[in-house]
Amino acid sequence: MSLELRPLEQRDFEHGFLESLAHLATVDLTPEEAIRIWRGRNAAGVRTVVAVSKEGSVMGTASLILEHKFIHRGGTIGHVEDVAVHPSHEGKGIGSAVVRAVVELARQSGCYKVILSCNDQNLAFYSKLGFHKHDNGMRIDLR
Amino acid sequence: MSLELRPLEQRDFEHGFLESLAHLATVDLTPEEAIRIWRGRNAAGVRTVVAVSKEGSVMGTASLILEHKFIHRGGTIGHVEDVAVHPSHEGKGIGSAVVRAVVELARQSGCYKVILSCNDQNLAFYSKLGFHKHDNGMRIDLR
Repeated sequence: MSLELRPLEQRDFEHGFLESLAHLATVDLTPEEAIRIWRGRNAAGVRTVVAVSKEGSVMGTASLILEHKFIHRGGTIGHVEDVAVHPSHEGKGIGSAVVRAVVELARQSGCYKVILSCNDQNLAFYSKLGFHKHDNGMRIDLR
Repeated sequence: MSLELRPLEQRDFEHGFLESLAHLATVDLTPEEAIRIWRGRNAAGVRTVVAVSKEGSVMGTASLILEHKFIHRGGTIGHVEDVAVHPSHEGKGIGSAVVRAVVELARQSGCYKVILSCNDQNLAFYSKLGFHKHDNGMRIDLR
């Protein structure tokens, strides 16, 4: 299967990027609203990767927050967020491809570790990609 | 006990902020190096809170990464990171105070949830502060 892995670009907002994310949770944004959010994320150093078909459709995505810490001598860590595959492209290894891409981006960015939270159903998926269970994901809902 | 909770300021780098973090992991930065990192974190929208004594010493700290998502209609979430208490001020509720402060900051910033990762030893501490175990913290070490 032909698949390009590259940073999110503006044209992707009209070609399956938001539909891929909608598989994860409600999006309900116009492309214009989403592009405004994207600019803010870029300014904050968040990197979003897409897997794109030969025809230019987004088949999946993952994001990486780069956090520059004081600890570990000013070390950087990567947080993987919002891994999603377009419903028309499940079962083709797109999820693995986008996660590998953001881990590689973290490595190139000098991160000493990459972390993420996942539910029990996704433990095996992330274990195959080299992650190990390290601690507990805790949460407070504010709404 | 007199305790002020406020955003990290430049003077704190000479008054116990780095020593508080060193209780968590190696810091090994000069105040000047740390201030450079702090500026980058500010630019990326990371908020660091400190608990300060009447004498102006940092007794503890916690940080909040605000992540602006595409999902949940462009919703914002908060990631709590690097909760640390100065070794001279343990057992006084400083950890709880700084975590409550960043959760309140997340609420004021419009976050729909706040997440963090913790080891089994800290489950009870975060549960008392209103967090519940939601999923699994996964990790890859790159060094």
